[in-house]
Amino acid sequence: MKTVTLAHGNGGAENQELISKVFYKAFKNDILTKSEDAAVIEDGNLAFTTDSFTVSPLFFNGADIGKLSICGTCNDLAMMGAKPKYLTCSVIIEEGFDFKSLEKIVNSMKKELEINGACVVSGDTKVVPKGSVDKIFINTTGIGEIQQKGISSNGITEDDVIIVSRDVGAHGATIFAAREGMQLSSNLKSDCASLYVQIKALIEAGVKITALRDATRGGVSAVLNEWANQSDVCIEVQESKIPVSDEVNGVCELLGFESLSLANEGTFVMALNKNEANKAIEVLKQFDNSKNATIIADVTKQYPKRVVLNSEWGTKRFLELPTGELLPRIC
Amino acid sequence: MKTVTLAHGNGGAENQELISKVFYKAFKNDILTKSEDAAVIEDGNLAFTTDSFTVSPLFFNGADIGKLSICGTCNDLAMMGAKPKYLTCSVIIEEGFDFKSLEKIVNSMKKELEINGACVVSGDTKVVPKGSVDKIFINTTGIGEIQQKGISSNGITEDDVIIVSRDVGAHGATIFAAREGMQLSSNLKSDCASLYVQIKALIEAGVKITALRDATRGGVSAVLNEWANQSDVCIEVQESKIPVSDEVNGVCELLGFESLSLANEGTFVMALNKNEANKAIEVLKQFDNSKNATIIADVTKQYPKRVVLNSEWGTKRFLELPTGELLPRIC
Repeated sequence: MKTVTLAHGNGGAENQELISKVFYKAFKNDILTKSEDAAVIEDGNLAFTTDSFTVSPLFFNGADIGKLSICGTCNDLAMMGAKPKYLTCSVIIEEGFDFKSLEKIVNSMKKELEINGACVVSGDTKVVPKGSVDKIFINTTGIGEIQQKGISSNGITEDDVIIVSRDVGAHGATIFAAREGMQLSSNLKSDCASLYVQIKALIEAGVKITALRDATRGGVSAVLNEWANQSDVCIEVQESKIPVSDEVNGVCELLGFESLSLANEGTFVMALNKNEANKAIEVLKQFDNSKNATIIADVTKQYPKRVVLNSEWGTKRFLELPTGELLPRIC
Repeated sequence: MKTVTLAHGNGGAENQELISKVFYKAFKNDILTKSEDAAVIEDGNLAFTTDSFTVSPLFFNGADIGKLSICGTCNDLAMMGAKPKYLTCSVIIEEGFDFKSLEKIVNSMKKELEINGACVVSGDTKVVPKGSVDKIFINTTGIGEIQQKGISSNGITEDDVIIVSRDVGAHGATIFAAREGMQLSSNLKSDCASLYVQIKALIEAGVKITALRDATRGGVSAVLNEWANQSDVCIEVQESKIPVSDEVNGVCELLGFESLSLANEGTFVMALNKNEANKAIEVLKQFDNSKNATIIADVTKQYPKRVVLNSEWGTKRFLELPTGELLPRIC
């Protein structure tokens, strides 16, 4: 009997297979088929997106499941050029979970909602017997008001370049280190952050964005592969341009992972016309969270639907969509 | 250390305490404070609501978690006089869950979406290691277009009467029987059903509705107590008028529960002006699912914020908001 494996939740190839063969197949409609970070509804005026958070441990360097649950959904709205507005919050709590931790989590949510200028308008609370859930899972679903229309993963062309907003892989590396009880430098902390403030600044500066995505499960690799596939282009990454911290590099060596495949929770990838790139980087450099924003890739027709990684020694290899179990419960 | 107990998820008194002391306190805003089945947003044009489904067993007489997950959220929209339009679907699956069951669940969702004329436009799929979740939990969050404005639990007056749409307690009794492996009459099955079709007919017939609520966790008792409290009125129920099937009565005797406190998933309670009641019942009688709709209560000023149960022998007692563990994982 075929069963669901951890790999089916990896944000990579098997995850896409599960989604397309089971969910898209049944729910098929034009909006879903676009595979954007959020659905665009109501004549292009509103964005609508959902995420469930199962991260373990609940508290980690740089954030907790509460902050993550607001950042995750608000960022998916921001990635469609939308201002986060209304959220729902649905929690499933294991019997015996302590009130203090719950209050800490909910206060993190509150703080992050304020940063986004959004509010929770509807909720649901379930408590289940011991063993039915591991401590607490949170779903947030959000509606945002689209400020710049037309942002889409389906319209990237050779006129575009690809920018990454900061050093990659910090969230994935932090969760891994926390789980393994590794004593690493305190500089290693999750990048978890709300991104609307940066997107707002880009839009207000008149930057025309082609595509935007926060590089969560599956990391930058998953985003670039999905974009290459959806827009039928080749994305050529300059390996030496990818910002990676020493701490993340260290964890990657232990894991045997690519930093580009590690999850982020406050790092985005942006495609935009070459002529807009410098203006965008100027804007992003004003923010602490994106002061190292940089161009990492060009768009070509060389190998359509593929991502190529060019090393500084002139060699080339394909960067594949991540496969395998990666890190379950990363978000 | 204070911890969360199963009673905090009962849909009754402890559940309200958890919600108000933790969630409402942190997220406080005008929309949330109204405590309606769905938030009313965008100048009263849209309704927005969320629900997570953790029911056990996943398949039971009359429905499964898939059907339940669509009915639950679409019904919360319908209870605000809204036509269900866009849904998100977020699933958390335990590693090792079989594909056949998943497909069966997703197909139930598809079928029920069609009944509502709604579609899933965004989703999320997480797979977690064995023991982190019991089989599968589903969150659905929905947006509906409000067809009749002003339906609210806060505006019930002495001019209103209370209608229940069908016999009560079928869902709760069915889940209980399934868990205990009780061999009961095959007539006992969950009432799980989409209610928008009936609400649409009421609105099209020009019935002006004061308040509407599907009587899920905590049953009709919870709805009436919340309404009495929110509208500052006394609701006087005629016990003999409450429709209850023999099968549900049988289970209630075993459980020591009131049928009025058992969960329903396709049964609603409606408050409306006395003068509108006959027209409403005429409309409801056209549907198999509400052919026994009937007036069960009057609204008075006798004991404000309380619900009174009048027996057929002339005795009176208060019907309290349900307390205690009730049945965890009922929905």
